[in-house]
Amino acid sequence: MIERAASDSGQRPHFADALAARVAARETQLVLGLDPDPARLWPAALEAAPEHGDPAQRAAAAVAAHCRALIDAAGPECVAVKPQLACFERLGAPGWRALADVAEHARAAGLLVIADGKRGDVPLTAAAYAQGLLGAVPTPFGEVGGLRADAATVNPLLGIDALEPLVAAALTAGAGLFVLVRTSNPGAADIQDLALADGGSLWMRLATIVAHLGESAIGTSGLSDIGAVVGATAPEHLARMRELMPHTVFLLPGIGAQGGSVEALAPAFAPGRAGGLVTASRSIANAHEAAGGDPAEAARAEAARLRAAAWTLA
Amino acid sequence: MIERAASDSGQRPHFADALAARVAARETQLVLGLDPDPARLWPAALEAAPEHGDPAQRAAAAVAAHCRALIDAAGPECVAVKPQLACFERLGAPGWRALADVAEHARAAGLLVIADGKRGDVPLTAAAYAQGLLGAVPTPFGEVGGLRADAATVNPLLGIDALEPLVAAALTAGAGLFVLVRTSNPGAADIQDLALADGGSLWMRLATIVAHLGESAIGTSGLSDIGAVVGATAPEHLARMRELMPHTVFLLPGIGAQGGSVEALAPAFAPGRAGGLVTASRSIANAHEAAGGDPAEAARAEAARLRAAAWTLA
Repeated sequence: MIERAASDSGQRPHFADALAARVAARETQLVLGLDPDPARLWPAALEAAPEHGDPAQRAAAAVAAHCRALIDAAGPECVAVKPQLACFERLGAPGWRALADVAEHARAAGLLVIADGKRGDVPLTAAAYAQGLLGAVPTPFGEVGGLRADAATVNPLLGIDALEPLVAAALTAGAGLFVLVRTSNPGAADIQDLALADGGSLWMRLATIVAHLGESAIGTSGLSDIGAVVGATAPEHLARMRELMPHTVFLLPGIGAQGGSVEALAPAFAPGRAGGLVTASRSIANAHEAAGGDPAEAARAEAARLRAAAWTLA
Repeated sequence: MIERAASDSGQRPHFADALAARVAARETQLVLGLDPDPARLWPAALEAAPEHGDPAQRAAAAVAAHCRALIDAAGPECVAVKPQLACFERLGAPGWRALADVAEHARAAGLLVIADGKRGDVPLTAAAYAQGLLGAVPTPFGEVGGLRADAATVNPLLGIDALEPLVAAALTAGAGLFVLVRTSNPGAADIQDLALADGGSLWMRLATIVAHLGESAIGTSGLSDIGAVVGATAPEHLARMRELMPHTVFLLPGIGAQGGSVEALAPAFAPGRAGGLVTASRSIANAHEAAGGDPAEAARAEAARLRAAAWTLA
């Protein structure tokens, strides 16, 4: 029985291993952020919306068309997409349907899907978020499958018991989590950089918690299914983060529009190429606004540039 | 011009004033939490679902019927409802539509709507959450109205710049926010109770930030539109919280199912009856499981008990 259990455990599919294999096969660590703003969609996407009807349904159709076109253009340079749930959720039920549609389009293009919702709540509610994003919910009418993302971003402010249902659901589904450790906005310093009475900062404490949660979820790649969100705008912390979280995949938002540069990220890749995922969204989707020309071609070129810059570091 | 501005500012509708007026008129500080679990719906709600079709749509219809029945039964004892977004979101687009339906039903019953999603993200994304929950999003197809909740719960881990777009949107909409300060789960101690190097704990720092953000949003009630989530399971902190946040409305989850008792909450009501909102969900919705009898009658009785217990304290 013990052998059987050990063997089952060894065969459990790991998000981290699937990610490492995908990074190697596609030769890219770039993650395409999908933060669609209805006021800045590509012209062809606007034309794809129904001519009449409810504004929310028309806007959601245009948002979905924009994201599909962005995936078609820049997806081949990427390993995953990262839809920003806020940008879909603000369009209500039609927006949520657009999110499911876009996730399906990304999967069909061979991309992993990282649901970026930064959810976090007390344990019972955290389990409900996990059902919606990573698993399914049993109902008297049959099981209702959720978004079935490959990974989700989560907020650790509510503590370890609030993360545990998300970790359990992720491991059951062969999915991953990215826990906020140090975010990319200037205000991150207000809370995450606070010095603690017993040494270090809050983000260091969060890093320790993430490393501990992920210890029992390390795959054959040497990487854990429990990752961390580490803003690319604070590269001075990256070496220390890597010490504290040696097996953790770093999701690195803040490249481009938020001011981070790819070159500063080298320490992220110490455990291998899949140790750091470089995320960019507006700098790709809006590349044509600076570069001119066709939005799709500008997006592809900017994604190719970021992909090459990251690949040479690792 | 200065007089005009001051006068405009004085006339801006305040969530806190609307709340105080509603608490006085309805003689209750009780908030009905709506955390529908498709596996524990009231029997009549299950029967209200369509007989055939997609499980998500059938489950969402049953969830909406359950919440409407709960509002009809316990709503008269309450001042507001607090839908838990996770419980709707896990049913996808049909769940999001059920959420909008339930919010509308609550409004029609004279109840305020507090969207409990604990959202938090970098500033641009926080603004998108604010559009979806409290405001509207402009699109080329016309404005898309969001949930138009009266208030929303938010997570402050990302810092002050990430809260500011939510505060701005709330004040523009005459809505409120409840910022997490000390949550009701045991694991809250892991992060929120950490001692800081320059004194106090993280939750005290969060309390100071909330008080500061809310200073310019105090209505004629003496209460601010920027409230705090303060778990009823840690009443030993309440007096200190009230010192740090003298004008803040405390949203107090954790009564009943999570183990908190109403009697321990007296310090919350120092600035007036609307200074503390007592939240209960499963202890009301599932009261019939312990008490027996009709679910609606058991829910009404439990809500009436909690309402009276809170009202005598304040």
